[in-house]
Amino acid sequence: MRRRSSAAAVASKRAPAPPAPLHATGNGAGDPAWAWEERRWRGAVNKVRAGRSLKPARWKNGARMCVALSFDSDHETSTLREGSTSPGRLAQGEYGARVGVPRILELLRRHDLRASFFVPGVVAALHPDEQRRVVAEGHEVAMHGWIHEGTSELTEVVERDLMRRAFDTLAKIAGRPPVGVRVPSWDFSATTLPLIRELGLLYDSSLMADDEPYELLDDGVATGIVELPVEWIKDDAPYLGMNRATAIRPYTAPSAVLEIFRAEFEGALAEGGLFVLTMHPHIIGHRSRIAILEELIRYMKGMPGVWFATHAEVARYCKATA
Amino acid sequence: MRRRSSAAAVASKRAPAPPAPLHATGNGAGDPAWAWEERRWRGAVNKVRAGRSLKPARWKNGARMCVALSFDSDHETSTLREGSTSPGRLAQGEYGARVGVPRILELLRRHDLRASFFVPGVVAALHPDEQRRVVAEGHEVAMHGWIHEGTSELTEVVERDLMRRAFDTLAKIAGRPPVGVRVPSWDFSATTLPLIRELGLLYDSSLMADDEPYELLDDGVATGIVELPVEWIKDDAPYLGMNRATAIRPYTAPSAVLEIFRAEFEGALAEGGLFVLTMHPHIIGHRSRIAILEELIRYMKGMPGVWFATHAEVARYCKATA
Amino acid sequence: MRRRSSAAAVASKRAPAPPAPLHATGNGAGDPAWAWEERRWRGAVNKVRAGRSLKPARWKNGARMCVALSFDSDHETSTLREGSTSPGRLAQGEYGARVGVPRILELLRRHDLRASFFVPGVVAALHPDEQRRVVAEGHEVAMHGWIHEGTSELTEVVERDLMRRAFDTLAKIAGRPPVGVRVPSWDFSATTLPLIRELGLLYDSSLMADDEPYELLDDGVATGIVELPVEWIKDDAPYLGMNRATAIRPYTAPSAVLEIFRAEFEGALAEGGLFVLTMHPHIIGHRSRIAILEELIRYMKGMPGVWFATHAEVARYCKATA
Amino acid sequence: MRRRSSAAAVASKRAPAPPAPLHATGNGAGDPAWAWEERRWRGAVNKVRAGRSLKPARWKNGARMCVALSFDSDHETSTLREGSTSPGRLAQGEYGARVGVPRILELLRRHDLRASFFVPGVVAALHPDEQRRVVAEGHEVAMHGWIHEGTSELTEVVERDLMRRAFDTLAKIAGRPPVGVRVPSWDFSATTLPLIRELGLLYDSSLMADDEPYELLDDGVATGIVELPVEWIKDDAPYLGMNRATAIRPYTAPSAVLEIFRAEFEGALAEGGLFVLTMHPHIIGHRSRIAILEELIRYMKGMPGVWFATHAEVARYCKATA
Repeated sequence: MRRRSSAAAVASKRAPAPPAPLHATGNGAGDPAWAWEERRWRGAVNKVRAGRSLKPARWKNGARMCVALSFDSDHETSTLREGSTSPGRLAQGEYGARVGVPRILELLRRHDLRASFFVPGVVAALHPDEQRRVVAEGHEVAMHGWIHEGTSELTEVVERDLMRRAFDTLAKIAGRPPVGVRVPSWDFSATTLPLIRELGLLYDSSLMADDEPYELLDDGVATGIVELPVEWIKDDAPYLGMNRATAIRPYTAPSAVLEIFRAEFEGALAEGGLFVLTMHPHIIGHRSRIAILEELIRYMKGMPGVWFATHAEVARYCKATA
Repeated sequence: MRRRSSAAAVASKRAPAPPAPLHATGNGAGDPAWAWEERRWRGAVNKVRAGRSLKPARWKNGARMCVALSFDSDHETSTLREGSTSPGRLAQGEYGARVGVPRILELLRRHDLRASFFVPGVVAALHPDEQRRVVAEGHEVAMHGWIHEGTSELTEVVERDLMRRAFDTLAKIAGRPPVGVRVPSWDFSATTLPLIRELGLLYDSSLMADDEPYELLDDGVATGIVELPVEWIKDDAPYLGMNRATAIRPYTAPSAVLEIFRAEFEGALAEGGLFVLTMHPHIIGHRSRIAILEELIRYMKGMPGVWFATHAEVARYCKATA
Repeated sequence: MRRRSSAAAVASKRAPAPPAPLHATGNGAGDPAWAWEERRWRGAVNKVRAGRSLKPARWKNGARMCVALSFDSDHETSTLREGSTSPGRLAQGEYGARVGVPRILELLRRHDLRASFFVPGVVAALHPDEQRRVVAEGHEVAMHGWIHEGTSELTEVVERDLMRRAFDTLAKIAGRPPVGVRVPSWDFSATTLPLIRELGLLYDSSLMADDEPYELLDDGVATGIVELPVEWIKDDAPYLGMNRATAIRPYTAPSAVLEIFRAEFEGALAEGGLFVLTMHPHIIGHRSRIAILEELIRYMKGMPGVWFATHAEVARYCKATA
Repeated sequence: MRRRSSAAAVASKRAPAPPAPLHATGNGAGDPAWAWEERRWRGAVNKVRAGRSLKPARWKNGARMCVALSFDSDHETSTLREGSTSPGRLAQGEYGARVGVPRILELLRRHDLRASFFVPGVVAALHPDEQRRVVAEGHEVAMHGWIHEGTSELTEVVERDLMRRAFDTLAKIAGRPPVGVRVPSWDFSATTLPLIRELGLLYDSSLMADDEPYELLDDGVATGIVELPVEWIKDDAPYLGMNRATAIRPYTAPSAVLEIFRAEFEGALAEGGLFVLTMHPHIIGHRSRIAILEELIRYMKGMPGVWFATHAEVARYCKATA
C-alpha cells in the first residue's frame, strides 16, 4: 500500500483522485462538478434533450385529451436484476405474473381499454403465455430492458447486445416487433438514444422533460423519435414500493395516491394534454390498489373527450399530426 | 486512464470485476445478472414456486371468505438478531411481551376470535408463560426462527440446526409440536423448503406469490406443503415500524393503515378469498394502534359469512378440500 | 476461490468470520446472535428490565389519568453531537432556543400547565437564561446528557464523567439539582442504570417496556428508580424530523400527528393511565406544529379528571403511592 | 491485532483515530463532540448567529403580514452537482426550465404577484432567456451557487471563486447585480458570511434561526446583512422530492403539503410576521402540485392586509424600518 511505481505516482499527481460524490450515478463522474469547464456541463446537458413539442392541436377523433396507461411487467426481474436469487423476494414479483397481470387485464377488459405493457426480455421468456394473452386482448407489448438491468452501468457494447436480445425475444414471443421502449428504472444512458435509432424504434417513454410528447434531440440533432414522457409522480412505485433492505416503504395511503393521479389527470384535462401513467403488476395489482386504479378509470371515463390509447397509438398519432 | 499494463489487461479480460449490485441480498449474487445464462435465471425462479391454487370453492361451514389474523411475537429478538444488547432497544421489544400480547389476547377474547402467534424459539424460552396462555386461550403457536435470524445468511447446516431447535423448544413449551412456520423477515432461503419438508410441517406462511393459498413447488415438484401467503401490504411493520439507526419511521397514520387493511379485506370479500394479516405485539399493541385493529375487527365481524380461523385451521381445510 | 491453504482452512474453522450484522448498535455485538449461548441472550435481556408496575390506583386528587408533557431542548447539540459545526445546520437548532422555547412557554402559561424540559449540559451552558426562565415559570429542568452524545458508544468512565458534568451544570444553572434523566436518543447503555443509582436520581424517562410507570430492575434487583416510559410513537421527531444527509423527512402531516397523539391520550384515558409526550422545541415549536399541540392541549383539558404534571411530580406520586 | 510496532503505537497516542461520526457533515468534525473543550463548541455556535430581530412593527403600507414566495431554479444542476451526467436524471431537471418556470410565471402573472428566483450560475448560463423573462415580468433573480455545489465541502478559495463567478454571471445575464443569496441546499459554511460581506450583498436567505427577519452576527459582530430565514417545513422538496438512488420519495400527498403551508401562513398571519416559502420549478411545477400552490395563493390573497413581496423588497424594507 505504501509504495507505488513512480509512473503511477506521477499519474496520480497529474490526476488527483477527486472525492467520490455522494450519489454519483450515471455516466460521467470524476472530478467535482464545480471544477468542470463550461464545455463539459454544456455537453452533458445537450447530449439528450427535448426538441419541438409533439402535442397535437386536437387529439384523435377530436378528443380533448389523451390518457396512456402503462404497466411495467418487471415480475421476478426486480429481484434478479440485483443478482439476488432469494426465493422470498422472487415470490414478491411472482405475484405480478400470477395475480397482477390477470387482474389488470380483467379490469381493462371490463372497461374496454387498451394499454401498453413494458416487458423485460427475461420476463417475456419466463412468461410467454402472458405476453401472448396481452397482445391477444389488444394491448401493446414494448421493450423494457433484458433483465431490468441498470443501463447506465453498462458499456455501449453490452447495452446494444441486451437491447437487441430483448428486441428479438419480444418480437418472437409477442409475434410482432416492438416499436417502443421504456428503459428500466428510466435509467437512460448516454448511449441509449443512438441504440434506439439503430433499432428503428418509433418512441421512447423514459424521460421527464415535459408532460407532453416531444421529439428527442441527439446532441442537438432532431431524431424523429417520439418521447412520451414519464414521471415518478405518475408512477405507483414511489408511493407503494417496498424494499426490506432499504428504508423504502409503502407509506402513502392508496387514497392519497389516487388524489395525486387524479390531480395529474385533471391538469392534463385542463390543458388538453397527455396523461401517461406508469404502474407495475406486482404493485398496483394488489386488492387495495387495483381498487384505486378502477376508481381512477371510472373517474376519467366520466369526463367527455378523453382518448384512451396505447403508447404506440399515441406516438404514431403525434408523429403524424405534429 | 487510457493505457494499462498488458498483464493487467489480460487479467481484466479473464475475470472482469463485476459491479457490486446495490442491494444484493439472499443466496446467489456474483457476476451481474445481465451476464447470467438462461439456465441460471430460470433455475433461480423455479427453485421455489407457486403450484396449484388451494383456494376452496366454499370456506368452512359455507362461509364466503376467510380471515386469518397473525401476530409475530418478535419481542426482544428484533434487537438481539442484530447482535445488539442495547437495553434501550431491548425495552422497545419488551413492550410486546409486557403490554402488547396481553392487550391483544384481551381483544381477541372480547371478540371471541382465534389467531396464530409466530414465535421465535428464544422468545418462547424467555416468555414460556406467555406461550402457554396463548395456547390455553385457543390460539395457535407456530414457528418463527430461532432468534429472528436472517435465514438467507445461513448455511444449510446452521439453518437446519436452528429450525430443529426452534421446533423442539416450541413443542416443549407450548405442549404440542408446531405445524406451521413463518420465516423471520419472510427471508425464505433456497434451503428452507427442503427443511420444512424434513420437519413434516403442514404449512408455510412467508411467501407472496398470491393472495390465495397455494401448494408449494420444490424445483417444480409438488410438495403438499400449503402456502398461506403474506405481503408487506398486509403487515403493520412497514407503516408503523421505527428504527433509529435507519430512515425507517412510522410515517403512516393509523387511520391510513386501517384504510389499507380494510381495502385488502374488502377485496378478499369480493373475491370470496383469504385475508391474511400479519402484526407484531410491540407494534400493533400500542394504544393508538390496537384501536384500529379493534375497529377493523368490528368491521369484518359486521360482514356476513366471514370465517375467522388460525393458520393451522385454514391450511388443514384447504389441503382437505382443494 | 475453490482451494485454500490448509492453514487458512483450519484458522477458518476455529474462528469463522461472522457476517457483520446490518444495523448492529449498542453494547454487545461480535459473533452472530444465532450462535450465542442461552446465558448470553438471557443475560442481555435481564440486564435492565421492567419490574413491578407503579401505576397508582387513583391519580393525584382523584384524577382519572395523568398527562406528562416533556420537551427535549436539544437545540444546537443535535448538530454538535455529530461532530459537525456547520452554521447552516446549527441554525436549525438555534430556532429551538430563539423561537421554540419562548413559544412553548407562552402556550403552557396560557393553559396554566407545568411540564418537564430535558436539557443537555451544553445547552444549559449556552442558554442559561432559558433554563432559569423555565424554572421560574414552574417547570422542571432535568438531565439529557452532556452534548446529546450517543451513550452506547461511550466507555463507562466517559459516561460517568459526562453524566456528572451534566448534573453539576444543571444544578448550578437551574438552581437545584435535577432529579430525573432522559438519555439522549433514548440510547440507554448497559452502564446507564448503575450511574443513575450513583447520582441518586428519582426517575428515568428513556425506556419503552410499558405505557405505565414501573420500577427498574438492575440485573433482576429492584432499584427503587421510577421509569416513566417513552415511545417514538409519542414523540414529534419521528414524524416531523428532517436530516438533509439521510432520507429522514417530515412526511407526516401535522393533522396525522395530532391523530396519533390524541389516540394515545384516549387509550390512556380509557385505561386510567399515564400519557407521556416527548417533543422538541426546534421541531414542535414551529407555527404549523405548535398549532396541533395547542389543539391537543385544549382537547385533553376538555376531558374531566386529567392531572397534568411534571415528570418529577409523577415519579414522586407513583413512588409514594404504589 | 494485539501488538503493534512501537512507532505506530506512539503515532497512535499522539493522534488517536476518533470514531467517524455517523452523519458528520459541514466544517469541523474530528474527535467526538463530547471530548471538545468549551471554547470549541461555544466558538462553533457563535460563528454565525442570529442578532437583533428585523421584524418591523408594521409591514409596507400598513400591511398586517408579509409573504415572500421564492423558487430555486436548480434545473439540471440538481443532477450535475453530484458529478452525474445521466440523461435520464438530467431530464428530470430539464422539466423545471421547459415546463415549471413558464407555468409558475403564468400563475404569478394571473395573480399579479412578484417573487424571487434563486438561480445557480450554470443554470443562468444554460437558460439565459428564462432569467431575462423572469426579470422582465418584475421578479427578482438572486444567487444560488455556481452549480448547486455543496458549500461546506469547499475551501474558502474555491467558495469565493464560485460565488464571484455566480455573481458576475447573474449580473450579466439578468442585467443587474443580484442583491441576495440563497446557499445551495442551505449548506451555509463557516466562510460563507465573510464572502457575503465581501460581495456587498443586502441579504441572505439560507438560515433557520427564526421565522422573522434578523440581522446576522459574524463571530458576535453585527453585519448589517439581513437574514430572511427559510425552513425545510416551508419547502416543497422534503415532501415531494424523489431520488431513485436513496429512500427519498414523494410520500406526502399534495393536500397534506397544502395543509402545512397554510398552517405556516396562518401562524405568520396571527403573529403579523413573515412567511417565506421555498419551491422548485421541477418539483412544484408539476400539474398535481401547481394546483396546491394556486389554492394557497387564492387563500392568502383572500386575507386582508397581506403584503406579497420579493426577498429584495422585504430585506430593504426591514433594514430601513427596523
